[in-house]
Amino acid sequence: MTKTELFRSLHHGDRPLVLPNAWDYGSAAMLAEAGFAALGTTSLGVAAAAGLPDGTAATRDETLALARRLGRLPVPVTVDVEGGFSDDAGEVAEFCAELAGAGIAGINLEDSRSNAELADPREHGALIAAVKAATPELFVNARTDTYWLGIDGDSTLERVQHYEKCGADGIFVPGVTDPERIRALAAALTVPLNILFSPAGATVAELGALGVRRISTGSLLYRAALAAAVHTAESVAHGQQLVAEIPSYATIQRLLEG
Amino acid sequence: MTKTELFRSLHHGDRPLVLPNAWDYGSAAMLAEAGFAALGTTSLGVAAAAGLPDGTAATRDETLALARRLGRLPVPVTVDVEGGFSDDAGEVAEFCAELAGAGIAGINLEDSRSNAELADPREHGALIAAVKAATPELFVNARTDTYWLGIDGDSTLERVQHYEKCGADGIFVPGVTDPERIRALAAALTVPLNILFSPAGATVAELGALGVRRISTGSLLYRAALAAAVHTAESVAHGQQLVAEIPSYATIQRLLEG
Repeated sequence: MTKTELFRSLHHGDRPLVLPNAWDYGSAAMLAEAGFAALGTTSLGVAAAAGLPDGTAATRDETLALARRLGRLPVPVTVDVEGGFSDDAGEVAEFCAELAGAGIAGINLEDSRSNAELADPREHGALIAAVKAATPELFVNARTDTYWLGIDGDSTLERVQHYEKCGADGIFVPGVTDPERIRALAAALTVPLNILFSPAGATVAELGALGVRRISTGSLLYRAALAAAVHTAESVAHGQQLVAEIPSYATIQRLLEG
Repeated sequence: MTKTELFRSLHHGDRPLVLPNAWDYGSAAMLAEAGFAALGTTSLGVAAAAGLPDGTAATRDETLALARRLGRLPVPVTVDVEGGFSDDAGEVAEFCAELAGAGIAGINLEDSRSNAELADPREHGALIAAVKAATPELFVNARTDTYWLGIDGDSTLERVQHYEKCGADGIFVPGVTDPERIRALAAALTVPLNILFSPAGATVAELGALGVRRISTGSLLYRAALAAAVHTAESVAHGQQLVAEIPSYATIQRLLEG
């Protein structure tokens, strides 16, 4: 089974696929070593790592560079390509084909644009169709930001059903937390529904019972990582014992050789 | 006071300068916001983030890219340039001048080479002298890896005194933990002594009492960050409550706008 085939099959297991989102090679390699079957990337993490604004085309090159690094990993990786970094369907398809060529198994393609507005669903559908035509094996997770941007929750069902018709292999609706809405979305789709994990929201088991097939952590791990870095530095500065278990220098070096 | 002048003065405060080491823009911006007066970088973190081996010239471009991002921060930043990424003193001096031009206040220049051997101290001294000649304002922290590589602890004093003569503004001896050896090193130097913090070793206050003026965290924060990412992902997967305080998405976005 190829990594792409494996990735597709992971959406149909007994439990939802929990997809931790890495921001660099080290975090991805550590998560793979910890036993996660597949990984995503976080565009906020990639943007923050590079000191660039999130949700703009500015992170295109960083995203490609990260994808090339993560394509080497033994586990399937799906890459957050934001809105495709271009309005031109041909350019988006070409970019995604480059990712597939680098060993990437899937992408997230969102319908919010850098002006924090939603794309016309037909235009976004055309991007999805162009990517699928160019790279049929790539798992295209179509993301709608109706809830995420909080501007048009009512159009969600219409949008995701259109994206499904355009060839999306999965649908991602970050920001929706109401169990009944999640259940209704999952029931209305023939492809797997992906939800963004929220620390204040439903557990993986609860989301699974609602019909969710894939659960992403989004930027949560990167944010937890930054918190741990600051907390560790403050503990050192204040002479406090470090309580968390921290991998050794040699462990990280081994990840880089692997 | 320029950032470079401020950085120099921070080595002469009431307490040792605790220098947390960032691996990317986001971690550096978070540490600066948390109130740390100056920041370093970690070559292991930079290498791991890029999926490249540490301690080789492979990370030269990544180091420069990171330096350009961190030079924008309001706090002084010192960059780990490993062995200078070249054996040619002119090339090392040119690289360091580029860092200074990007707003960087200091560098760490180590005498271990990519073959995990120590450089001839005269050759390393020549690199230090070349950097100081080209960029006198840059704080050059000369690092000796006698303890770090565990191959020639006896030559430490001779090496660091030579590096001091060649113009080093500070001396870094990672890996030394014996209090009496640390005290003897600090006493033998006229420039500030920098020690690598060890979770199992002396506290900041204890190191200060031994005469240490600067304490680095090395790769510790990056390793703590990776541990937190994996731990958070596992907590999500297993339905466990997240206990660490994690900054919000908006907090990270604000860092990128600042």
